[in-house]
Amino acid sequence: MTHRVFNFNAGPATLPLPVLEEIKAEFIDYQGSGMSIIESSHRSPEYSAVHQETIALFHELLGISDDYKVMFMGGGASTQFFTVPMNLLHGGKKADYIRTGTWAKKAIKEAELFGDIHVAGNSENDEGKFNYCPNQSELDLRDGTTYLHFTSNNTIAGTQYHTFPKPVAGSFLVADMSSDMLWRKFDATDFGIIYAGAQKNLGPSGVTVVIMRKDVLDLCADGIPTMASYKTHFAKDSLFNTPPVFPIYAIGKVLKWLKGLGGLQAMEQINREKAGLIYGAIEGNPDFYRSPIKEDSRSMMNIVWRCPTEDLEKQFIAEAKANGMSGLKGHRSVGGCRASVYNAHPMEGVKALADFMNDFAKNNG
Amino acid sequence: MTHRVFNFNAGPATLPLPVLEEIKAEFIDYQGSGMSIIESSHRSPEYSAVHQETIALFHELLGISDDYKVMFMGGGASTQFFTVPMNLLHGGKKADYIRTGTWAKKAIKEAELFGDIHVAGNSENDEGKFNYCPNQSELDLRDGTTYLHFTSNNTIAGTQYHTFPKPVAGSFLVADMSSDMLWRKFDATDFGIIYAGAQKNLGPSGVTVVIMRKDVLDLCADGIPTMASYKTHFAKDSLFNTPPVFPIYAIGKVLKWLKGLGGLQAMEQINREKAGLIYGAIEGNPDFYRSPIKEDSRSMMNIVWRCPTEDLEKQFIAEAKANGMSGLKGHRSVGGCRASVYNAHPMEGVKALADFMNDFAKNNG
Repeated sequence: MTHRVFNFNAGPATLPLPVLEEIKAEFIDYQGSGMSIIESSHRSPEYSAVHQETIALFHELLGISDDYKVMFMGGGASTQFFTVPMNLLHGGKKADYIRTGTWAKKAIKEAELFGDIHVAGNSENDEGKFNYCPNQSELDLRDGTTYLHFTSNNTIAGTQYHTFPKPVAGSFLVADMSSDMLWRKFDATDFGIIYAGAQKNLGPSGVTVVIMRKDVLDLCADGIPTMASYKTHFAKDSLFNTPPVFPIYAIGKVLKWLKGLGGLQAMEQINREKAGLIYGAIEGNPDFYRSPIKEDSRSMMNIVWRCPTEDLEKQFIAEAKANGMSGLKGHRSVGGCRASVYNAHPMEGVKALADFMNDFAKNNG
Repeated sequence: MTHRVFNFNAGPATLPLPVLEEIKAEFIDYQGSGMSIIESSHRSPEYSAVHQETIALFHELLGISDDYKVMFMGGGASTQFFTVPMNLLHGGKKADYIRTGTWAKKAIKEAELFGDIHVAGNSENDEGKFNYCPNQSELDLRDGTTYLHFTSNNTIAGTQYHTFPKPVAGSFLVADMSSDMLWRKFDATDFGIIYAGAQKNLGPSGVTVVIMRKDVLDLCADGIPTMASYKTHFAKDSLFNTPPVFPIYAIGKVLKWLKGLGGLQAMEQINREKAGLIYGAIEGNPDFYRSPIKEDSRSMMNIVWRCPTEDLEKQFIAEAKANGMSGLKGHRSVGGCRASVYNAHPMEGVKALADFMNDFAKNNG
């Protein structure tokens, strides 16, 4: 019997136990090849099959056509913060950005190195906190932008876009979906680029998935560094140089697990049920817990709440840990509590947390 | 009993079996934490210990002082091809490059985007092949360069620097050591930056090790993208963003294994013995095998040879594979045969190959 804690870390995060077990079982001798998949050449039939199957599963699960290219790149989503504008904002081009938290701020900082950037929406309040995602009527979008960038889910703030913004005519969306990629199906029509670091909803850290609408490639700059150019990875199907084999292999396993669950429709239902249990525990104890987030912007992936005092928050986190629930401390920049309940977080973990929240409120309220 | 082939791939490459077994054994529950190391937060005590221990082992094995910083970056050594000049060649600075093969050519191409680049040595022959490493007297070094870049081991060509070039006064060496990092100890005094993709001598793919002399940091540009800036990774000890946890963790295991073997002195002796067996089989059958590489430049990591005809090379590779030895085909750009015998390649594999080479020459000569 494997000892497992309920891991509420924001990322790297919990992975499906059947995926870990499969990786372990075939770790030394991958499919009778006489070597581990991590020892296999990235040009071998074994790894090629993994690579192509993982790409195909992204298409299948998201329901996106061959008009989109799925790429794997290194350096984390933080590297995409500069890669996007380096490729797209050459020659005085402009882009709008929505400022909804720490990661959006970082993306804006990098974009300002390359182009004419305008903050089209900003949800920072007087206390420096971000507690909602601006809706379409709150956006001040410019005409003639190449793209509109937004963060679909804000891991630290605990907010999420439930209705995506709409770009102006002739522009497209670029989205950092690092912390909610594949939590549900969505209509990709308006999106030119979607990127996501793996270590939240997709798999272990070490690779970033970039999904690009093929016509966006024509807008990409020439004369930029080869490894920063989308054209390179696009043309070589993410095999220009050695890819991060293990993270991609592990993502492939996670996607197969997702497919086995019934795909993204089934996953969305489970995710809504899981988040509902925790928001239910917050709302069911209104004199004890408080959500700082506007109701229409509450994240289904990263659920944040406050206790009556910071001391009670510390006590909550410590007692939860003693009860087999780890990673519940809010990000140091915002404080409070946070439960990250990505796709792989099991329902039992969420039920255990909701029960614990109810008990803790009763005992300390 | 684990079925293992003798894996002569150029990278990703074979890893020590005890390392694979250790990873497998603790894969689901890392040190009683109740989760896999790949599910652990990169800020957790468990991962922090792995991160710091891996850094410390690089210092210890290489015998390099705290004047050097060991960093982990994403995107492969190919990303360093532009990161080095982007950081160091701002404001019209210049650098010399030695052109010894495919990877050196790629490094030169990226550097030309940023600074004044001069090819100070070039070993390409009339047939477009690179069969040696220019020695000091063959170099045409300029005064006033920031650095001299070279590739210490050329994976595709099968050549290696056994005596490192010497930079001009006031300059320092920058070396791509992707395919021979840690094959032996060396004097790092002249080196400002050493970088190496992991997937040859260090571990699985997905991380690049960058070792920087601390005074070089002061020469690095400001105002470049955050993730491309050495200053970022230096200041944050490679934890500015989520690092590629699994590859770093696996490298840590490989370094511990190396230390257990007796460190780099012991490793060098074993490597020389292994390479000696294969070069011995080439030289022992002079009417059949031929090394295209000048004797003083022969690689201890990637050993290349030709058979009398291309058909015999095909037959050699196929028969070797049938005898449990894989990955012996030379790179498509140069043809012939190649045995990559990195640190982790076992002595039995090399002995089996040398025996097979002798038999094959006898049977087909």
